[in-house]
Amino acid sequence: MAKAPVLTPQADDFPRWYQDLINKAELADNGPVRGTMVIRPYGYGLWERMQQDLDARIKDAGAQNAYFPLFIPQSYLTREAEHVEGFAPELAVVTHGGGKELEEPIVVRPTSETIVNEYFSKWVQSYRDLPLLINQWANVVRWELRPRVFLRTTEFLWQEGHTAHATREEARDYAAHIHRNVYADFMVNVLGIDVVLGRKTARERFAGAINTLTLEGMMRDGKALQLGTSHELGTNFAKAFHTEYLSKDGKQELVWQTSWGATTRLIGGLIMSHGDDNGLRVPPRLAAVQVVVVAIKGDEAVTKVREIGAKLRAAGIRAQVDDRIDTPFGRRAVDWELKGVPVRIEVGPRDLAEGTAVLVRRVVDPHSPGGKESVRIDELTELLPTVLEEAQTQLLRESRERRASRTSEVATVGEAVEAATAGGWARIPWADLGPDGEAELAGHSVSVRCLVAEDGSVPDSDDAPGTVALVARAY
Amino acid sequence: MAKAPVLTPQADDFPRWYQDLINKAELADNGPVRGTMVIRPYGYGLWERMQQDLDARIKDAGAQNAYFPLFIPQSYLTREAEHVEGFAPELAVVTHGGGKELEEPIVVRPTSETIVNEYFSKWVQSYRDLPLLINQWANVVRWELRPRVFLRTTEFLWQEGHTAHATREEARDYAAHIHRNVYADFMVNVLGIDVVLGRKTARERFAGAINTLTLEGMMRDGKALQLGTSHELGTNFAKAFHTEYLSKDGKQELVWQTSWGATTRLIGGLIMSHGDDNGLRVPPRLAAVQVVVVAIKGDEAVTKVREIGAKLRAAGIRAQVDDRIDTPFGRRAVDWELKGVPVRIEVGPRDLAEGTAVLVRRVVDPHSPGGKESVRIDELTELLPTVLEEAQTQLLRESRERRASRTSEVATVGEAVEAATAGGWARIPWADLGPDGEAELAGHSVSVRCLVAEDGSVPDSDDAPGTVALVARAY
Repeated sequence: MAKAPVLTPQADDFPRWYQDLINKAELADNGPVRGTMVIRPYGYGLWERMQQDLDARIKDAGAQNAYFPLFIPQSYLTREAEHVEGFAPELAVVTHGGGKELEEPIVVRPTSETIVNEYFSKWVQSYRDLPLLINQWANVVRWELRPRVFLRTTEFLWQEGHTAHATREEARDYAAHIHRNVYADFMVNVLGIDVVLGRKTARERFAGAINTLTLEGMMRDGKALQLGTSHELGTNFAKAFHTEYLSKDGKQELVWQTSWGATTRLIGGLIMSHGDDNGLRVPPRLAAVQVVVVAIKGDEAVTKVREIGAKLRAAGIRAQVDDRIDTPFGRRAVDWELKGVPVRIEVGPRDLAEGTAVLVRRVVDPHSPGGKESVRIDELTELLPTVLEEAQTQLLRESRERRASRTSEVATVGEAVEAATAGGWARIPWADLGPDGEAELAGHSVSVRCLVAEDGSVPDSDDAPGTVALVARAY
Repeated sequence: MAKAPVLTPQADDFPRWYQDLINKAELADNGPVRGTMVIRPYGYGLWERMQQDLDARIKDAGAQNAYFPLFIPQSYLTREAEHVEGFAPELAVVTHGGGKELEEPIVVRPTSETIVNEYFSKWVQSYRDLPLLINQWANVVRWELRPRVFLRTTEFLWQEGHTAHATREEARDYAAHIHRNVYADFMVNVLGIDVVLGRKTARERFAGAINTLTLEGMMRDGKALQLGTSHELGTNFAKAFHTEYLSKDGKQELVWQTSWGATTRLIGGLIMSHGDDNGLRVPPRLAAVQVVVVAIKGDEAVTKVREIGAKLRAAGIRAQVDDRIDTPFGRRAVDWELKGVPVRIEVGPRDLAEGTAVLVRRVVDPHSPGGKESVRIDELTELLPTVLEEAQTQLLRESRERRASRTSEVATVGEAVEAATAGGWARIPWADLGPDGEAELAGHSVSVRCLVAEDGSVPDSDDAPGTVALVARAY
């Protein structure tokens, strides 16, 4: 008799598989207010590891953390015309505080450009105060009509960077630096997701930006997920908030700004990039638990796994011990698969006598399969770093191969829609598509995810010769 | 001519000194919505260090981080009668979302017991699921009528722990463990604040708790500041949210709970415990910058300070280099004093020739003064750990001596009011004071900060024989 599947298979119903995995791996629950979420410890642990890594990269990029208020006077939002137009439909509004109706309604921050500029305009006086490089880790609220856990939630967690520079070139270079060296490097080398770096079309740009750089990943169903953005804001907010500096020549000049963010959506991206029908697969460089050492049964096995766990941890491997022998082994094994711990070491009475254990890989290379093997316990410390690196490499390779095999070159809007609807990405010359073709795609729930240069680099403008539009369905 | 003071002297006007320091050391600004604050990078850096240290201790206590939503349905609050009575006057209410009036108003969390219990009641089924130990780092909102930066703000940052246990004893022991081993140990040994551990009277208890443990510090003006609390919630929230478990005997039982929090108020406590007329003094174990190496003038000095900075960092000392020789040295020295960096190493052309530098201590022991001394550069790595430990010890000693010298034993309400009004603390037998005396104190803006046993331990109940009330004015 075949085992009943733990999750709805991806091939049967991908959205249901996603929801099943989130429930069964105990990543998150839906919150009581529509579109909010409760991030459970195992899900939050993924976010903590992402935060640690990104925070170090952001600090390396010279930015310092600060904290701006959650509450923004409604009038701030209206100062930048495009910004308010973009965000007004998504606002949560506080009208009562301390038992009284407020004189001016307050919005719960959907993003912080306006309130940040109110303070930048005080802190920046002279060219000596530039560049000003600030980041904050915070929650933001955007009212969601079609919420989905981690992907589109009314409240989400993120970091938002805000910087001010003396020149447009400096701001452009900084936005590009964050795009490539903070975000892309993290997503590719830690998360193992083969992101495409591109620029958004005018239609998809951040409300108030002059340029939006994006990172797009292909999920296992062929849809695209925007995993982070880095914006050049030009002088739009500086004009609205009078953020000016005295230049070396003694002139008052507007600052040039950037903002950039990555959110708890990254957890959704991780799930949909690497998860399979047995559960999540966490890349070892991200995993809080890289190796779980499981006692199958017997007190001797319990003693042994604790000993192995301590030895692995001493060797710098993030190992956890599972000594709950009162719970059936099979149920625990299924649970570790669901949670996506990269390597499982199983120790039972029979192995002990021989000084061996069974090593089970969560990420198997189909070209050289070796899902389960008997290994000598005293060789684990030496063996595991290689096994973990192989898993890391394999996840990125799968992500690369998926994108390569499911991206097609097309020539017409019709072909692009067809490719996207079939669960793939399409590349079409932007000169052939243009804003009119883009509007037509929208009628089919398909969008231009980004523009890229023919050589894969990020074009400097929309009309750079040879610019290609990457077209897909998206989350 | 005497130098104009950088800050209003403490003796002249303590509240103004506090505000001056926060402005000039660039710790925080007032936010645009009344009672909110912008935490600037140097102030946020203090919070990040506090978070790191507390987070590690919380994890050692077995709790895992998670994240619950900011938005709570108003109806949740009303389920626990005392809780809603305590918090209703302080709520911020969202009435509109996504451009529409909401069917049920939403409150912005003032604390999370209610929403946490809604989920605990789902997650906890059997005794095997207990204890459930959860913590979250988050922002909360309580409408403040008399706001003051860091001390009482409409929005503040904190951690809030929430746990569920099988028995009252377990919950009581866990609340006490957090009180002593997480909070007190951190405040005494890292922050250098000599806190008193006690229990709150019924009047001062958290709304919904059966017992509140508190940590009270004496500020340099003799007032008290509550620096953290750990509550036993009994089964109050469990009843309201049906948080029950199946016991080993197969019975449905209510869980026993705790909650505990520490906030950005700790930054205010740090300032008012250790700050002096020249600015902040940061304890070395907390300081993100323990040593600043300052080039006075000249390119050679710049080269030298960079070299020294690298060497100190390699030796595990958190050192920063100040090579801004275009800015007058005097101004930079004043700024480092304001920011409270424990040790300054000054390097000028004259010192270089002799291989020496001037070591300036921010924290001077009045019994063996040595504020400035010439030291050999090649001996710094060896010398500094001792100098830093001396500063750490000295700050705690000052805090201890202050409390000892400014606490008096009194016998009547009148004497207690007199002592508190004069800027000190008073100890009075709780049996003599009682709830009536406590109410009388309130008329003089004086309160019972906590109850302690005669031997300084925390009494098990309000009417334990020999219980002493600690009386003071408080922030």
